[in-house]
Amino acid sequence: MNFDDTIAAPATIPGTGAITVIRISGKDSFAIADRVVSFAGGKRALDAPGYSILYGTVPLRSSSLPLDDVLVSVFRAPHSYTGEDSVEISTHASSYIASTLMQLLCDAGARVALPGEFTRRAFVNGKMDLAQAEGVADLIASQSASAHHLAMHQLKGHLSDELSRMRAELLDMASLLELELDFSEEDVEFAGRAQLNSLLDSVLAHIGRLTSSFRTGRAIKEGIPVAIVGNVNAGKSTLLNALLQDDRAIVSDIPGTTRDTVEELLDIDGILFRLIDTAGLRETSESIEKQGIQRSRKKIAEADVVLEVVDSTLDEESIEKQISNIVSMLDFTKQELFILFNKFDLKAGLNLLNNDNNKNVIDVNSFVSLSDNQRKHIKVLKISAKEGIGVDELKKILSSSRKKLVENSEETIVSNARHYDALSKAGVCLERVKQDLAQGIGTELVAEDLRETLGHLEDITKPISNYELLGNIFSRFCIGK
Amino acid sequence: MNFDDTIAAPATIPGTGAITVIRISGKDSFAIADRVVSFAGGKRALDAPGYSILYGTVPLRSSSLPLDDVLVSVFRAPHSYTGEDSVEISTHASSYIASTLMQLLCDAGARVALPGEFTRRAFVNGKMDLAQAEGVADLIASQSASAHHLAMHQLKGHLSDELSRMRAELLDMASLLELELDFSEEDVEFAGRAQLNSLLDSVLAHIGRLTSSFRTGRAIKEGIPVAIVGNVNAGKSTLLNALLQDDRAIVSDIPGTTRDTVEELLDIDGILFRLIDTAGLRETSESIEKQGIQRSRKKIAEADVVLEVVDSTLDEESIEKQISNIVSMLDFTKQELFILFNKFDLKAGLNLLNNDNNKNVIDVNSFVSLSDNQRKHIKVLKISAKEGIGVDELKKILSSSRKKLVENSEETIVSNARHYDALSKAGVCLERVKQDLAQGIGTELVAEDLRETLGHLEDITKPISNYELLGNIFSRFCIGK
Repeated sequence: MNFDDTIAAPATIPGTGAITVIRISGKDSFAIADRVVSFAGGKRALDAPGYSILYGTVPLRSSSLPLDDVLVSVFRAPHSYTGEDSVEISTHASSYIASTLMQLLCDAGARVALPGEFTRRAFVNGKMDLAQAEGVADLIASQSASAHHLAMHQLKGHLSDELSRMRAELLDMASLLELELDFSEEDVEFAGRAQLNSLLDSVLAHIGRLTSSFRTGRAIKEGIPVAIVGNVNAGKSTLLNALLQDDRAIVSDIPGTTRDTVEELLDIDGILFRLIDTAGLRETSESIEKQGIQRSRKKIAEADVVLEVVDSTLDEESIEKQISNIVSMLDFTKQELFILFNKFDLKAGLNLLNNDNNKNVIDVNSFVSLSDNQRKHIKVLKISAKEGIGVDELKKILSSSRKKLVENSEETIVSNARHYDALSKAGVCLERVKQDLAQGIGTELVAEDLRETLGHLEDITKPISNYELLGNIFSRFCIGK
Repeated sequence: MNFDDTIAAPATIPGTGAITVIRISGKDSFAIADRVVSFAGGKRALDAPGYSILYGTVPLRSSSLPLDDVLVSVFRAPHSYTGEDSVEISTHASSYIASTLMQLLCDAGARVALPGEFTRRAFVNGKMDLAQAEGVADLIASQSASAHHLAMHQLKGHLSDELSRMRAELLDMASLLELELDFSEEDVEFAGRAQLNSLLDSVLAHIGRLTSSFRTGRAIKEGIPVAIVGNVNAGKSTLLNALLQDDRAIVSDIPGTTRDTVEELLDIDGILFRLIDTAGLRETSESIEKQGIQRSRKKIAEADVVLEVVDSTLDEESIEKQISNIVSMLDFTKQELFILFNKFDLKAGLNLLNNDNNKNVIDVNSFVSLSDNQRKHIKVLKISAKEGIGVDELKKILSSSRKKLVENSEETIVSNARHYDALSKAGVCLERVKQDLAQGIGTELVAEDLRETLGHLEDITKPISNYELLGNIFSRFCIGK
């Protein structure tokens, strides 16, 4: 790819809204703008200072009338998004005007930009590293306060800073080992092994903290997975509709993620929840039952929170059986269960529900025997999905139980699968380094493993020579970014 | 409505594209921007010169991270779109960022703008008249070169200029008549009746030219109506698909127009055609036949061009009958007929089609007897819709026959139904003035009719006191314009 030419693309969707902005970047940006736009007062983009706006018209050869009156914002290298000379042309929002202007710009020497090419140039010109560039894409896709916070954290370079500190430590270690290698015939040991080991442990712990944050990061970005389970007539759909009524999130595509069609997104107080219907657990016909149960089990296993909708009008025994069944499936070290006694306003089969109608949150202990740890991660609520009773309380408990995700996020949280993958690989390599040292394996091999670790970490922020990776990542950006 | 406050709205659709632009206008624009944005180097929008850009961040109270890094364009009254102090804030294109920023702006004193309110303020502040403001809406909706040309013509004030010249002439006349009125008891005649009559004729002719341009104007804006007629198996659908293959126009809503669902839009060389399927003319069952024929006849009557698809494999007699039937329905002073001999590549029932296969355009005279005027407005082509033969030629002839619409449009063409309506009313009033004068009716009545004429013309550009009309027009604009 040629990075020396001048590119142009709409930065907004032409034909929608009130204005369209077309962005141009590259060394000929000003000359091209001057060729296409006739500026008021004989001004030229070439002479204009950075961060100034010029008013002009775009003349048409075929007409006495101009294509449009435009405003042209001038940005001079390196003080622009890409770090290159660049201009933004603001027109009326007609798709005809946008496409004609793009044609005129190309006739004047610009090339239509590839997806993500502006951000790629910002990366190449050192305005941001790769993790920050990916933060830009995440920021555009962010639809909730927490996802926005995560993307901005990454865009501002906090992950990059941590990685660079980690790399500096490992580089120190590597250079000591390389030095040993240079003097290998003299059998000198420059790096104190105990010191190396303690450094390794600290970096490994750091990597471990980052990789284990990925479950949270993904949940924030794509929505916290919440599985809804329950028998056919327990009221799952009614609950789903009641939950979505005011808070259904309208979400555009997040790069690199795919979402199930039976999922619905719910935004409660800035936290995105992904509601997953697990129809099929109990309600399939025999022939496909096995497959359905398997799929539902998988969804339940992947969920952070499980909402079990129980029909209160059933008898106590079958209710206890249903609950025990779900409890046995869950891993309470990372999952939470909400038992929702639906239809409690009708005939309640469980005595305890009748005991105190004013008390909505029920002590789970009173009807199912559980371990301490299980009890800590189970909440019980009386609801009427149909009447909307208890639904707001459920939302409140759901969001407050997850609020810590957002509040904790001053710490770096990894939300990008590629970063997680590279960190995991770095962790494996570094474990090998540790083993190498413990087993007294030759410095040469240790140094090689260390270099490989550094390579994986470098891939996250500055994969300088990995053009394929770069192409892959930026092609997922939108045009004009 | 309060025009003294400061309004804000996105000028692009949040959540799409690479950037979102939020527009603020009103006397507190700079103060509000300064409250919401923390500018680099301690700068302030209040101190910034017009046509300059400031870089800043939008801090969040709830987070150590900013909402976004933004660029703020500063425009000082009267050198802005609205004529007021105004700023445009450019952010990353996330809907979360846009909605949060809108919230912050409102907390800082802005109000969410109504649809079209920015343009309404431009109108109120004398930056443009009403016809020009309507030109802005048409410009945004324009999807073809000719529709764009028309909208730009109107936006640039050419219609307004003509109307204002017309009004000046009528005002001169009115003041002479009013003078007579003042001296009515002395029975003095200030205005020479012959001179008045000649002026009236010239203005009436002008109004007539403008109203009669409306058929063309509407055709350019909404697409030239082309009716497709033909028997069930003649190949209408195949032709429709062949025509649309490469040139189907993607058209957003044009304010104040509705379009039939069985219509398709075709863009040939920058001219928009509205293809109207007239199924029902011959193929209905008896019970609904009458209704179907009526509907089809109406569509045919409204079309500028009729494409009659004829099955060449039929016998000569039935073909002649079909053609005569359609010819009898048309008004060749304003309609054109294209007779398309489809399936000519199969067995051709008409001898003349076999005479010269290399000659595609056939002299219609050779098989149907027509008057000179009819013949001038009928073209005959051999096509094979299925094989795509002759379809490009049909497009070429269609567009070149209409090219004059675009080329002629240095003349003012009325494309807005409201303008057409007001002009028609002005014409009727002015005819009455002429009759009044001819019948020697009292000056007082003449002057009243003249004032009414002026009122109708004024309604098009500056209906100063007609708030209902204004509200009606601007509410059809998009938000942020």
